[in-house]
Amino acid sequence: MPPGRSRRASTVSSEFGLIRRLQAQTAQPDPQVFKGIGDDTAIIKTSSTEWTLITTDLLAEGVHFNPAASSYRDIGYRAAIANLSDIAAMGGTPRFMLVSIAIPPTCTMAQIQQLYRGMMQAGAPYRVRLIGGDTSASKAGLFLNITLTGVVKPRRALLRSGAREGDRLYVTGTLGDSRAGLDLLTSRRRVALRPAHTRFLLARHHRPSARIAEGLWLVAQGLAGAAIDLSDGLTGDLRHICEDSAVGADIDAASLPISPACRAYATARGLSLEHIALQGGEDYELLFTVPRRQQARFERLAAKTEFRMTCIGSMTPKAAGLRLKTIDGTTQPLPLTSYEHFRRPT
Amino acid sequence: MPPGRSRRASTVSSEFGLIRRLQAQTAQPDPQVFKGIGDDTAIIKTSSTEWTLITTDLLAEGVHFNPAASSYRDIGYRAAIANLSDIAAMGGTPRFMLVSIAIPPTCTMAQIQQLYRGMMQAGAPYRVRLIGGDTSASKAGLFLNITLTGVVKPRRALLRSGAREGDRLYVTGTLGDSRAGLDLLTSRRRVALRPAHTRFLLARHHRPSARIAEGLWLVAQGLAGAAIDLSDGLTGDLRHICEDSAVGADIDAASLPISPACRAYATARGLSLEHIALQGGEDYELLFTVPRRQQARFERLAAKTEFRMTCIGSMTPKAAGLRLKTIDGTTQPLPLTSYEHFRRPT
Repeated sequence: MPPGRSRRASTVSSEFGLIRRLQAQTAQPDPQVFKGIGDDTAIIKTSSTEWTLITTDLLAEGVHFNPAASSYRDIGYRAAIANLSDIAAMGGTPRFMLVSIAIPPTCTMAQIQQLYRGMMQAGAPYRVRLIGGDTSASKAGLFLNITLTGVVKPRRALLRSGAREGDRLYVTGTLGDSRAGLDLLTSRRRVALRPAHTRFLLARHHRPSARIAEGLWLVAQGLAGAAIDLSDGLTGDLRHICEDSAVGADIDAASLPISPACRAYATARGLSLEHIALQGGEDYELLFTVPRRQQARFERLAAKTEFRMTCIGSMTPKAAGLRLKTIDGTTQPLPLTSYEHFRRPT
Repeated sequence: MPPGRSRRASTVSSEFGLIRRLQAQTAQPDPQVFKGIGDDTAIIKTSSTEWTLITTDLLAEGVHFNPAASSYRDIGYRAAIANLSDIAAMGGTPRFMLVSIAIPPTCTMAQIQQLYRGMMQAGAPYRVRLIGGDTSASKAGLFLNITLTGVVKPRRALLRSGAREGDRLYVTGTLGDSRAGLDLLTSRRRVALRPAHTRFLLARHHRPSARIAEGLWLVAQGLAGAAIDLSDGLTGDLRHICEDSAVGADIDAASLPISPACRAYATARGLSLEHIALQGGEDYELLFTVPRRQQARFERLAAKTEFRMTCIGSMTPKAAGLRLKTIDGTTQPLPLTSYEHFRRPT
């Protein structure tokens, strides 16, 4: 979770904008801080060869996860991925994790053990080390706070503010799978899907990927302008890039990458593909920009990798705002509807 | 709060030992980690001139704080001090703070603003910068997680494991004031005290000090062996030093530093001074050891400072355990009774 970004719930959603402003007011400049509140992670200039990334993410039972719908191992896994994804969006290498938990009387030790297993499993491919934490009782509900550090070469981190008018907009992977998986888990309506599709969507929800390798590759090529990870949904997160870079954006609906399983789910549920791709949440894909004059070179290099990276639009003047070019050729402004609206306390 | 140390509550207290073990099992060695789980902070070897300290602390409403007994500003202040004190215990300089909060529907924005004000006020003397955070809804109760970083010169941090048999044991400030202040706030029994004494004890509870200057001075002199901050009470925290250093300890009851206000409180409540000093919690004083052969030199240097540092005992062979030399000259083993037992959810 980026510093200062909120996961809204209906009860307090209108107040989180105020908290962000409060945080920004309270934050003061410091020569060692390259980036404070307002990107996927903070950046500290720790040495001449390596800068430190740091991010923190608080997850509440009934708001961000539901033990009735996920195993504790999956809850732990996804919590760690949310933080790993923030490091990925900066083009960093994850390093150290600190975990705080507040445990309600209803939780068993076996469940807590599974939670830790899930977190450690998510970090294992990157050799993330658990170096600290805290434990507390909770009167109601499990609370989990992860702080994750990472490293990046000085001045190489991918910021939200690096997009320019005319840049091409790319996304890794496919969109909407996790949201579809969550819907399959929680909706009372039965959705007729092939078992393989159901399995795929559930796996994408329970075990999303953090695009660490993609972020590192982007930094190594030096061609990306801005980047952010998709935790709240394409529309909401693209809006952060637009605001921080002072640009607008056009998304081309026809080019949005949708998996066959998600396509089948949309058909079965009678939902438009655009709706699912734009409003999906917790995809943890990377959204990034590439200058137009570098597009050909970028796509040549990208074709040599195993990464799926799709051009889904381009950056426009700020005044144009956020727009969707629909499949039938019309252009319409995009409202700010993203996954956060699904995050009511249950 | 030190990595891996628990704040117990009656409901889950027996399980927190298991979590500590689980954390220790999950933690894996890393060449960049000088100290992981198990001290007041973790230590990362970030550069050849400066190492990074990092600690995280989760506070739950009804477990660690009670908005009926403290203002939100004081709650924020104390939460920040708990973390600053962990940096102090390592002899470090605090640097950057990340704050996560889960906000219940009952909380107002003005209260959250006061909470942030309190945190920032506690960090202001050390120019601590807020560089990140996260906000969430909470179904029940306010949760506050602070992650604090600091710096220390390579290999100069004060560890819990640095005590040796024969070392002299010292403590900064006075003991038991915060616990007495909490009792005045929450007990139904009226305690007849002079207004000045009441004010002093309440201030020591609401606005404790983090002994940053003392910790830095200890590191600069290079005479201290082990150190820890007193968050759970003298007995409990001394036990951590004993375990990590494989020694025992004798505490001399007659030498325990007690403020006149706390003395008056003990008399009024009919409690022994030892009881208050040993079982007090959240004193945030530093407990540290000095080799016996350095004692005279240490006390000469200490006398030139404005710091109050009192010798309260000495380290003994491990087999001797933790003992109290009472005022009447007898020696008795010390049971593990500390502040954590007062931390039941309210």
